[in-house]
Amino acid sequence: MATRCSSFRAEATLGAARAGVLRLPHGAVSTPAFMPVGTRAAVRGIAPEELRGAGVELVLANTYHLWERPGHGLIEELGGLHAFMAWDGPILTDSGGYQAFSLSERVTVDDAGVRFRSKLDGELRFLTPELAVEIQEAFGVDVAMVLDECVAFPATRTQAEVAVARTTAWLERSLRARTRPERTALFGIVQGSTFPDLRAAHAGTLAAMDLDGIALGGLSVGEGHEAMIAAVEACVPELPGGTVRYLMGVGHPGDIAEAVARGIDLFDCVLPTRMGRHGQAYTWEGRLNLKNAIFRRDPRPLDPATPDSPANAYSRAYLHHLLRSDDHLGRRLVALHNVHLYQQLVRELRAAITAGDADAFAAIRARAARASRPPPAVAADEGVQ
Amino acid sequence: MATRCSSFRAEATLGAARAGVLRLPHGAVSTPAFMPVGTRAAVRGIAPEELRGAGVELVLANTYHLWERPGHGLIEELGGLHAFMAWDGPILTDSGGYQAFSLSERVTVDDAGVRFRSKLDGELRFLTPELAVEIQEAFGVDVAMVLDECVAFPATRTQAEVAVARTTAWLERSLRARTRPERTALFGIVQGSTFPDLRAAHAGTLAAMDLDGIALGGLSVGEGHEAMIAAVEACVPELPGGTVRYLMGVGHPGDIAEAVARGIDLFDCVLPTRMGRHGQAYTWEGRLNLKNAIFRRDPRPLDPATPDSPANAYSRAYLHHLLRSDDHLGRRLVALHNVHLYQQLVRELRAAITAGDADAFAAIRARAARASRPPPAVAADEGVQ
Repeated sequence: MATRCSSFRAEATLGAARAGVLRLPHGAVSTPAFMPVGTRAAVRGIAPEELRGAGVELVLANTYHLWERPGHGLIEELGGLHAFMAWDGPILTDSGGYQAFSLSERVTVDDAGVRFRSKLDGELRFLTPELAVEIQEAFGVDVAMVLDECVAFPATRTQAEVAVARTTAWLERSLRARTRPERTALFGIVQGSTFPDLRAAHAGTLAAMDLDGIALGGLSVGEGHEAMIAAVEACVPELPGGTVRYLMGVGHPGDIAEAVARGIDLFDCVLPTRMGRHGQAYTWEGRLNLKNAIFRRDPRPLDPATPDSPANAYSRAYLHHLLRSDDHLGRRLVALHNVHLYQQLVRELRAAITAGDADAFAAIRARAARASRPPPAVAADEGVQ
Repeated sequence: MATRCSSFRAEATLGAARAGVLRLPHGAVSTPAFMPVGTRAAVRGIAPEELRGAGVELVLANTYHLWERPGHGLIEELGGLHAFMAWDGPILTDSGGYQAFSLSERVTVDDAGVRFRSKLDGELRFLTPELAVEIQEAFGVDVAMVLDECVAFPATRTQAEVAVARTTAWLERSLRARTRPERTALFGIVQGSTFPDLRAAHAGTLAAMDLDGIALGGLSVGEGHEAMIAAVEACVPELPGGTVRYLMGVGHPGDIAEAVARGIDLFDCVLPTRMGRHGQAYTWEGRLNLKNAIFRRDPRPLDPATPDSPANAYSRAYLHHLLRSDDHLGRRLVALHNVHLYQQLVRELRAAITAGDADAFAAIRARAARASRPPPAVAADEGVQ
């Protein structure tokens, strides 16, 4: 067994739900936990101390984007990703595979790895399991993700089977490629598309391997809430209780609450920050499109039910004005508000699990579902200023 | 004499330079003071608490933009501009005239006021001295500026004379139009283009009027540092010692230090925030274009000589990366840094005047001149990444 730099312990359970602590080289993370996405080594427009202020303990950064610019060599030269982005807490990076598949041109994948043409500089690139480990170890992050083959949705059973087998083979190569297991943990990824039996079998395969954490990948790619939940339900019974479980790319607050109820510990998603940048706020009564003219003279704070949100210092009318004026303060405040709401969600879920309070847990699930509702439709003459 | 809601007292002098306190309905402002520009009721991308953290005591907002959107009626309905923008300190607004002249189409000016076509909605608008007062009183700001005629540079002597006479007539109408002198102070504006004798005469005219403050307008329009200083030197001897003096739209740190040395108390300028948004940082060693490739691997903090700047938590390499990645965090940090440097400048000038320390004052002037220097020219092959 490799030297471990991470550990996970479930400290309380409520049904399948778990509250635990994930210990990583740069600090402890209370779970369930949500990671904001810092694609290019920044959670777009939001400063590290603002993330801290929202209760964020772990951030995700994108290997693909940072590999392209400024490059892992430069980041290592500058002291690693923590120093580079001035975030001294834990960092997890994805493997870069998902973006290589989805953002590049002329993508070909075979057992060796992923070949593609970069959109940034037009160069041909070749991402292998070994290189993905090398890049993430150069970043010096707390958690590296293995390169996996993420098939599109819908996928045939054969496509899913090939991806499962290839992902397992790549995982074995990734484990052998590690040079700094004392500094960077490695999480494996379960594939299997929307085939529950493939999911369960792959989860069982990974359960037997020497991994610091196990992620469910290839979801949140258009399969919908029901199929995503079915995949979670297929995998969780196969996973070891002492290993942290990470559902990649999920989701709305309701998705997160339902996955926590089924035993997931860790989440990342661009939704809170991307929605915020586009002027859409999550509130506990549902999403609001603050650009909508119905907010033009609304003097109320954004969402008093998220009491720690800095955006509550401003009226909805002012946020509407900032968004209409294309002043970045508006995008920033709404994105930060959404991060606060997500952090409040996982904090409340954690508290209910720790207290063993099933009623409170059920109430949070109901509120999370409400918070996920899209903005109400607006008559055309109300929709514009 | 009208009810006064503002007062100014010079508490120390050093040559012509003054350190004083401007008392306004929403608080006291130590002078010399610099106002960041919050065009659309926000200092683009920067939150009120960040301005406070930089030591800002007074902000400027633009009447023209807020009149167009969201409108002074709506701002008044929402509790006034302080409540709207969540800034409980003093606010000064310009009259809207400068933007009406410079940003609109089909502008015609006569003794009645300024007619123009709005670029926002294509509507014909008519800004009069009375309306400028009405709008600013509806905002509920601490200081309203009178509508003046700001002639372009260069102007003929006749054009400057007409603008002076019209500005004086408009000032008298503005004084009569006031309905809330107990809540909103009124500052007059000296015109006269680059003709020192017209400047001096107009300053003398305003000195005899019942004004809460006197501004020098129509500068920073392309006349250059020497002509700007000449205008200041022509006006100051004519101005009453007990009235605050405001040099509108100025300038680089060196311009500000030189104007303070000649008796100016108050400044506003878009430069620190606009430059910052474009990736250009003021440092005490000169301006830096952080987008330049020479910063790609520069591990140093931005400017340790501005010790309070939050941007110093990051390397120049990271700021370069953010600006190249078009992440707004970069623009925001550099703009906020520049605001910090400007605040440090006026704070240090104030301290030197208060201490009566001519050597320290001279040293700050020299540093301010250095801080204003444009970025060094870079060889073409260094200039791109």
